[in-house]
Amino acid sequence: MRAARYHGIEDIRVEEIEEPVCQEGHVKIKPAYVGICGTDLHEYLGGPTFAPVEPHPITRETIPVTFGHEFSGTILEVGKGVSGFEPGQRVAIQPTISDGTCSACHAGVENVCYSGGFIGLSGWGGGLSDAVVIPAVNALPLPSNIPLDIGALVEPLAVGWHAVAQSPLKNDSSILILGGGPIGIAVLLALRARGCGKIIVSEPSTSRQRFNLHFGADYVLDPRTDDVLKEVRCRTDGNGVDIAFDCAGVAPGLKAACQAIKARGTVVNVSIWEKAIPFQPNDLVFKEGKYLACLGYVRKDFEAVIEAIASGAMKPGDMVTRRVALENVVEDGFKTLINHKEDHVKILVDIARTKLSASPGERASL
Amino acid sequence: MRAARYHGIEDIRVEEIEEPVCQEGHVKIKPAYVGICGTDLHEYLGGPTFAPVEPHPITRETIPVTFGHEFSGTILEVGKGVSGFEPGQRVAIQPTISDGTCSACHAGVENVCYSGGFIGLSGWGGGLSDAVVIPAVNALPLPSNIPLDIGALVEPLAVGWHAVAQSPLKNDSSILILGGGPIGIAVLLALRARGCGKIIVSEPSTSRQRFNLHFGADYVLDPRTDDVLKEVRCRTDGNGVDIAFDCAGVAPGLKAACQAIKARGTVVNVSIWEKAIPFQPNDLVFKEGKYLACLGYVRKDFEAVIEAIASGAMKPGDMVTRRVALENVVEDGFKTLINHKEDHVKILVDIARTKLSASPGERASL
Repeated sequence: MRAARYHGIEDIRVEEIEEPVCQEGHVKIKPAYVGICGTDLHEYLGGPTFAPVEPHPITRETIPVTFGHEFSGTILEVGKGVSGFEPGQRVAIQPTISDGTCSACHAGVENVCYSGGFIGLSGWGGGLSDAVVIPAVNALPLPSNIPLDIGALVEPLAVGWHAVAQSPLKNDSSILILGGGPIGIAVLLALRARGCGKIIVSEPSTSRQRFNLHFGADYVLDPRTDDVLKEVRCRTDGNGVDIAFDCAGVAPGLKAACQAIKARGTVVNVSIWEKAIPFQPNDLVFKEGKYLACLGYVRKDFEAVIEAIASGAMKPGDMVTRRVALENVVEDGFKTLINHKEDHVKILVDIARTKLSASPGERASL
Repeated sequence: MRAARYHGIEDIRVEEIEEPVCQEGHVKIKPAYVGICGTDLHEYLGGPTFAPVEPHPITRETIPVTFGHEFSGTILEVGKGVSGFEPGQRVAIQPTISDGTCSACHAGVENVCYSGGFIGLSGWGGGLSDAVVIPAVNALPLPSNIPLDIGALVEPLAVGWHAVAQSPLKNDSSILILGGGPIGIAVLLALRARGCGKIIVSEPSTSRQRFNLHFGADYVLDPRTDDVLKEVRCRTDGNGVDIAFDCAGVAPGLKAACQAIKARGTVVNVSIWEKAIPFQPNDLVFKEGKYLACLGYVRKDFEAVIEAIASGAMKPGDMVTRRVALENVVEDGFKTLINHKEDHVKILVDIARTKLSASPGERASL
């Protein structure tokens, strides 16, 4: 079968590998749509970070590993001891791998499992292939009114949902989102689905600014030309926002977030950081601010996102800005995102479409 | 009357100034005991920071200002419109100055008032004098079983109480305190008064290590020779602590705090920082940690500390390691703390004692 495997920095190869065998407690899935994520790009450009160079403590695998951790698919086969699934059923995948034994897992925070990883990054195959075998607990059934391409968006949307769920959001909370890329938009969609006050987004790319207005931002600021702090205060009666979501992961963004919150406000981190940055804790101290670090998601975030899409509270279809074929995943997917990321929110690999050119005009079906 | 006034860096003078007149809504107080605080030392060595060079937005004063914001005293005179106080009554002073109009004040967080300040730092006189006139709301009556020297400890103890009250403390929470100086000890005493699990203190000075064991720490680590992270994990079943209080305010301490907490643990900042430091947010991200910045106290923290001392839940008397005369405040107080800070927790200026030498052996009376 085909699989796009990560061999190391700037080395992803679509190769023929042996099809995996469905084991007890597992389901075999035929991937349908697979999103390419910022983490994939980081691995491609600067990794391996998540991709294991030493045997991963849970999967025991090392690179090369099959990529693709944002995906939907159809059940091909149900392993022994698994109930609630049947062949042909459509599912979204929650890719978290956890050991179930560490104190994070015992505390119900499997997303920060001390040995944790992700299907599609740490081994056990991935979505960018013709078949993948995963523990049945990692598959979530999709309701009949959620098509498979939308199912591939559940994972990035769950990142935003999780961050919003961790935050002290109230119905009238005023919000600043730093960084209007895919994760910022996932936060924006979760906020709109749950309900809140004013949402201000700070994003330098003009095309991403348009996406954010489209998805429900009340104001979009350009940090290159706007005085973000002044503009935020102007729009919040001089007080600052209740919550700032940092989806940019750069030092000036964190500083802006700390400065933009009101007294006892909260900065929610939704980024993974490349390196240490200069930070003046007084930016939080002199307003008794909170800094809440979030990572990934837990199963209930996936359930909530699926419910929000099924009910119509969340309409993420326009996030899909391109569909590409598996054979062209590097050229049409990775390289497009690296060179023209501001024109895209989410590029989906359509596993069933082979050797076709990309179709920039096509949107998702919801 | 006498007053120790701050004129600028390394320039505190005990001088004769005019006695203040008691105004409407105010009380006139004869200070009894005055603690010298780390903030005073920062102003002396590196200020002015809090001491106003431009007219303070609330007091309208500029340096020179009378110092002394940790103090107790006796009511000399009660201004028009003030009820609940009478001459001779003993009080502790809550020195916060706030404008009551900003959004922090409206949110009930007067400790981070955008124009805020402190009696004894920002104007309106201070404890290091023979008399001070303050708004009646800044005075809290002391119960009959709390002597005046202990009354001067209420302010630093309220800093620790506030930080503990803001934290997600539970009866069995495991604790790490970084820095076992006066603020670390105030946190320790508040924790012991409220009840918690294991308390580990990391403090390099051997004499301060002894103070911390005396005040109830279960373990004291030396960050110069111990592997703090390893020792903390050893003592918490490998998990890390629930809450780390950073009372050190240095970059390695913050890093240790972030590393020492368990998944979803909390770092509580109880420091004011001199400058930006290198910070890697991932130290919190990969465990979904919280960072909670605290500053000062609110009135209810003072009330709680007074109640805890009166009930015997808190016994802070041994914090007093020296008593000095007002005339000798710089030589016996500031310079002793600068040159031998590790031998001291709290030096009190005894306003009634004039031109006597310091008495290192005397402890407070409770």
